[in-house]
Order: sequence, then structure tokens, then C-alpha cells
Amino acid sequence: MADENGFCLWFTGLSGSGKSTITTHLVKELRKRGSKLEVLDGDVVRENLSKGLGFSKEDRDTNIRRIAFVANLLSRNGVPVITAAISPYREIRDEARQMMGDRFVEAYVKASVETCEQRDVKGLYAKARSGEIKEFTGVSDPYEPPEDPELVIETERQSAEESAHQILAYLEERDLIPAAVAAA
Amino acid sequence: MADENGFCLWFTGLSGSGKSTITTHLVKELRKRGSKLEVLDGDVVRENLSKGLGFSKEDRDTNIRRIAFVANLLSRNGVPVITAAISPYREIRDEARQMMGDRFVEAYVKASVETCEQRDVKGLYAKARSGEIKEFTGVSDPYEPPEDPELVIETERQSAEESAHQILAYLEERDLIPAAVAAA
Repeated sequence: MADENGFCLWFTGLSGSGKSTITTHLVKELRKRGSKLEVLDGDVVRENLSKGLGFSKEDRDTNIRRIAFVANLLSRNGVPVITAAISPYREIRDEARQMMGDRFVEAYVKASVETCEQRDVKGLYAKARSGEIKEFTGVSDPYEPPEDPELVIETERQSAEESAHQILAYLEERDLIPAAVAAA
Repeated sequence: MADENGFCLWFTGLSGSGKSTITTHLVKELRKRGSKLEVLDGDVVRENLSKGLGFSKEDRDTNIRRIAFVANLLSRNGVPVITAAISPYREIRDEARQMMGDRFVEAYVKASVETCEQRDVKGLYAKARSGEIKEFTGVSDPYEPPEDPELVIETERQSAEESAHQILAYLEERDLIPAAVAAA
């Protein structure tokens, strides 16, 4: 089963909400289980598919549509994909859902702007507040949370590792990934 | 075997050389054999990954690099891919080869500009000659044939169907696709 069950785990959430950290945990665990996997994170995609695009609504939409195009190609051929871009606009995420149907698993990585700003791992919120970065999601640009995502990941209440386990449990239940190997 | 043998059949050749027609034959045959398959042709990619790019050397290179990025993601996960863009520049094709290694099968679809211009299926050569289209490969823009491609497809000497069979025979021999089902 699982090897041929392509799906797209589509993270959405603010910068600093925990998308990348959770992804790192998931990759480690899924590799251990021998699952195929590709990760399309915001940086990889901007480098390889969207160089030259900025952060206007139009450019963000184009960027997200490209991620969806590639995620669809992979997942419909049985390759699991994790996308980890902010993907702030509901309409474009819903386009991706439309395209992938049952294979689309939306995971809302939930943390308030205040929390993300306190974490500010990459120092981006400081730059957004000072005006050095314009069009920063949550500060000077909108973020539209999903209305009915498959998963809500509360990163203010649990660790990244706990979040990864929440997601793995869901994917196992849906029979989308191989079960964990029991400890000997 | 074959189902997990991802590869990238990378066509290169002038507009009108026969890339798309041969691809149509290949798709039909490979579907019949139950093989997975994705086709990234020039139009699909320009629509979904490269909208906004033009036909300068820089933009063409970016477009081809995106095709290679996606072809690599698919083929390294066991999904066969056919790319059918002109891909006029040797250097960028060689980058794709570098990226995909043994999975990269370059097929030079060979026909002279004169022949392609006589065919002129889409009426593009006429527009290129009149100046309506600038930067048209073979007319006002360079085409660099491969120096050592896996396959040379002589479309002035054989039909598209014969060309498809030449390619299928090669892929079978390399054990990259399932053999044809013998007629009962």
C-alpha cells in the first residue's frame, strides 16, 4: 500500500510558526520507515522555480501555483510530498486542493503573530517592523488561515516533535504512510 | 524492474523537427504497457512554471533549468519523464545531464531548418521570417546540436512511428521500460 500512496502534506502558517522544524522531524521519521519523500519548501522553490518573483499578491500566487503544479505531478505518481511555504492566501490553497483531491492534506501550523515574532529565528520580524522588509506576512501583508484544514498543529502548546507525531498518526490512520517499525 | 526505473527522455530539436508527434506515439505505447509517465512539453511548462519568461538566452536557460529541476524530482522517484522543449543550448542540457546522471537519455530530433520550415505545422517559421516573431530558434536564434546524444532521431528519413519504435527499442535494451506484450 503506502509506497504507492502519493499525497501532499501542505503546510500553511506564518514565518516562524514551525513549518520547517516540524518538516525536519517528519523527514527523519519517514526516511527511517523507507518512504519516498520530496520536500518543497519556500526557499527551494523560490530558487529553482520562481527566481525573479517578488512578494506582491500576484507573485505569491504564482509561486504557490507552481508548488502545487509540481506537488501534483509527484503525488499523482505515488510520491509523497511535503510543501512548507507560508502560502498565505486561501483561494490558491483551495486551487491546490481542487487539483489534488483526496491526496491533499492541509496542515495549519498555528501560532500567533506575537509568538512568531518573539521566536523570530531568522530575524525577519525585526526587519519587517523596521520597514527593511516590505510585504511581510502577518505584519504588513495578510495571512488567511484555513477554514477546514485536515490538521491544526498548535505549536504554542506542543513541541515540534509532538507536532510531527500528531501528523504521523494522522497519516498512518489514513493509510498514507507505512506504520512505525515496532521497537525490538 | 521497470516500474521503479525512473528516467528522463530529453528531446532536443528545432520547432517542427517532430518532438511532439513522436511524443504522442510514445505516450500511447507506454500507457499500453502500463508504465507511469509524465510529459513536460514546452507549452505545458511555459504555462505552469515559466509564465512571464521570454525567449532571450537568459530566459530560455531559466525555463530549461526549471524543466530539469522537475524532471529530476520525478525521475529520481521512479517516474519516467519525457521532456519535449527545443532546449537549444548545449550547456544547459549538459547541466540537466549532470543532475540526472544515468537517468538522462538525450534524444536529438534531427531535421534541417529547411525541412522544418517546409513543414511549418504551426506557421511559426513564416512569422519568424516576416519578423513577427523575434528570437526564433534556427532562424534568428542559435540551435546547438548535442555532440554525443544517446539517440539521434532522423525524422527526414523515417516516420514518427518509426522514430518512436527506435526509441522504445533503446529504452527496452537499457531495461528502462517494460517489454512490449507479445501479440496473442
